[in-house]
Amino acid sequence: MARKSSLLKQTLIFSACTILIIYAFFNTFLSSSTAAATAGISAKTSSLFAEQISRENLEEFPVKVTGNDKKVRVFMYDLPKKFTTGIIESHALARGSSDLSKYPGSDPVYSDEKMQDELVEWLEEQEYWRRNNGRDHVVFAGDPNALYRVLDRVKNAVLLLSDFGRVRNDQGSLIKDVIVPYSHRINVYNGDIGVEERKTLLFFMGNRYRKDGGKIRDLLFQMLEKEEDVVIRHGTQSRENRRTATRGMHTSKFCLNPAGDTPSACRLFDSIVSLCVPLIVSDSIELPFEDVIDYRKIAIFVDTESSLQPGYLVRMLRAVSTEKILEYQKEMRAVKRYFVYGDSNGTVNEIWREVAQKLPLIQLMINRDKRLVKKDSTEPDCSCLCTNQSAPITSL
Amino acid sequence: MARKSSLLKQTLIFSACTILIIYAFFNTFLSSSTAAATAGISAKTSSLFAEQISRENLEEFPVKVTGNDKKVRVFMYDLPKKFTTGIIESHALARGSSDLSKYPGSDPVYSDEKMQDELVEWLEEQEYWRRNNGRDHVVFAGDPNALYRVLDRVKNAVLLLSDFGRVRNDQGSLIKDVIVPYSHRINVYNGDIGVEERKTLLFFMGNRYRKDGGKIRDLLFQMLEKEEDVVIRHGTQSRENRRTATRGMHTSKFCLNPAGDTPSACRLFDSIVSLCVPLIVSDSIELPFEDVIDYRKIAIFVDTESSLQPGYLVRMLRAVSTEKILEYQKEMRAVKRYFVYGDSNGTVNEIWREVAQKLPLIQLMINRDKRLVKKDSTEPDCSCLCTNQSAPITSL
Repeated sequence: MARKSSLLKQTLIFSACTILIIYAFFNTFLSSSTAAATAGISAKTSSLFAEQISRENLEEFPVKVTGNDKKVRVFMYDLPKKFTTGIIESHALARGSSDLSKYPGSDPVYSDEKMQDELVEWLEEQEYWRRNNGRDHVVFAGDPNALYRVLDRVKNAVLLLSDFGRVRNDQGSLIKDVIVPYSHRINVYNGDIGVEERKTLLFFMGNRYRKDGGKIRDLLFQMLEKEEDVVIRHGTQSRENRRTATRGMHTSKFCLNPAGDTPSACRLFDSIVSLCVPLIVSDSIELPFEDVIDYRKIAIFVDTESSLQPGYLVRMLRAVSTEKILEYQKEMRAVKRYFVYGDSNGTVNEIWREVAQKLPLIQLMINRDKRLVKKDSTEPDCSCLCTNQSAPITSL
Repeated sequence: MARKSSLLKQTLIFSACTILIIYAFFNTFLSSSTAAATAGISAKTSSLFAEQISRENLEEFPVKVTGNDKKVRVFMYDLPKKFTTGIIESHALARGSSDLSKYPGSDPVYSDEKMQDELVEWLEEQEYWRRNNGRDHVVFAGDPNALYRVLDRVKNAVLLLSDFGRVRNDQGSLIKDVIVPYSHRINVYNGDIGVEERKTLLFFMGNRYRKDGGKIRDLLFQMLEKEEDVVIRHGTQSRENRRTATRGMHTSKFCLNPAGDTPSACRLFDSIVSLCVPLIVSDSIELPFEDVIDYRKIAIFVDTESSLQPGYLVRMLRAVSTEKILEYQKEMRAVKRYFVYGDSNGTVNEIWREVAQKLPLIQLMINRDKRLVKKDSTEPDCSCLCTNQSAPITSL
């Protein structure tokens, strides 16, 4: 039963991430104008919607953005059932069973690609989507594969993404989109700050072999696993492994966060709620809520090339003073709520805050798009913000 | 005397635009973090600063952003006198006269380029500038030539610009910067909306010959000046010409706004305060406050190529109904305050509102810059927002 419920949860997360279940669009606080958004939603977001007003084919949810008295009106599409719970039901039916415990993907009748196409076709028929070509919609696409087939057709929207690993420059950017954290998978560490109970210098548990940027993992592990105070374990998601990972993260000073198949990985957020200082080796990582969180205060960044120099990482970590580690832990405790979806003042509110901050720019682009006349130029009409720092090899 | 005062005003405007007179930096409303800005200021901005608190080498001005209870703290550098009134004084001394009525540029002793260099050298020595490489500063560079020599050294800042005519893509963008209106030069039309007193179909007065995009002017005028209900006058800035322009704009239905040396021109704002519907022929124009102003409601946009087709413009304008013109005029009256620097709820407040809206993104870039590690990529690290509209040839 416990196993069933866990798998059902995975199924729901899968659906929410991959197929973007629900949309909303919203009126903004902007004077005399209307913006809209499509919001990805899962059970996680429901805490936000204190009040619900039914409308024709739409539901309105007043969003209270923390620390901001601006009123943002969010509307959510009432999606056809086939895009929501219908996926699970049809899957169960096709298998002639009421067992909801398997991924829809294992069902030969269910096609994720077909579902993506149908969803976007449905969306493109909606009056509110067509009004501004989706610029004022929010689309949840947290899984790296979410909507991969139709991303070009929803790219105008504010995308809620884990990183830009599989997203082209013209599909996603820090300007238009919001980086959202993965749900942490292991238990929050509720003990006090300190290093006495943290005998392990550096801990990692997870998949040793990944694609793309994650190829670094095997190289790193070969180098690190022979160190006495370092624990490296290969392991995939399972109940038992999660227990082991929890124990490891709660009893280590530092937690290794190498790139996965894409630059980000859920392990980072596990580390933070474990008060285990993240050691991030992922050159292209993007981080959630970086406008309000200075990650140098809670994590150590090392560039990939340097991290592979024999002895470099452990030497560096052993030199970090206890005082400095306590500072990191204190800061992690202070920002923990940002990474807890279940917290009523947590992740969901922060995502909405970030979306709300983008409204003036969305409104500008909507107005500007409509009055632009054709130009004699073949250059794409882009506005950019660039980094011209000569980046160091570590943030320490 | 009247002439002298007018020229002195021009001198001051010139100085303010070209040399960016004053800086400020400000603490933001963002939790536990500090942002800063350099603010260009002229007599126009003083209405904003209700209260003034002196600090060491800095002055703090609490900024009240209209319709927003977020507190933005603006600090302003106490600039060495040589960068402010000193320019005018040294100019007058060099000429052995107390006549302040000439442009400093006519003085062989004064070098605008040298002044730009010295100003940026001074700035780069300031602790607050160095802290974030100027990202949290605001620089007023409204004149198309302002700071042209040192733009690369201040490009991290929020630039207050008239357009991006002489600004490279990596120096300025809609994301980072704020488009500000020119001061209107002719009198506000205080009469009622209506077309009875507006017998002229289309009016233009200004320089027939301009550089770059403005070359279209001569072509357009050759075509238009033979039309009976169109008034095209060549004329440079003078008291008499401004009187003629005022009369023309107050008695015409439409006012032509072709590109000048750069895509924008002060004439647009003259048209708006005259309730004379702007006919904009300037494909790369950028417009102030476009997040809250839908310019299709107050202006007609035509692409350059179409505008040069014989008869196209007048045929189009003659077909616009009186009802539609009244709608345009009503909208212009509603947004007029955005273009009046002297209005206590006008341009200056709106500029600060736009700057304040950029703070989260500024803070994100500041935090991100500092934790970035070097990458194995030669591509510039840019975040962009692009337009992919298939633009029509006119907004009408």
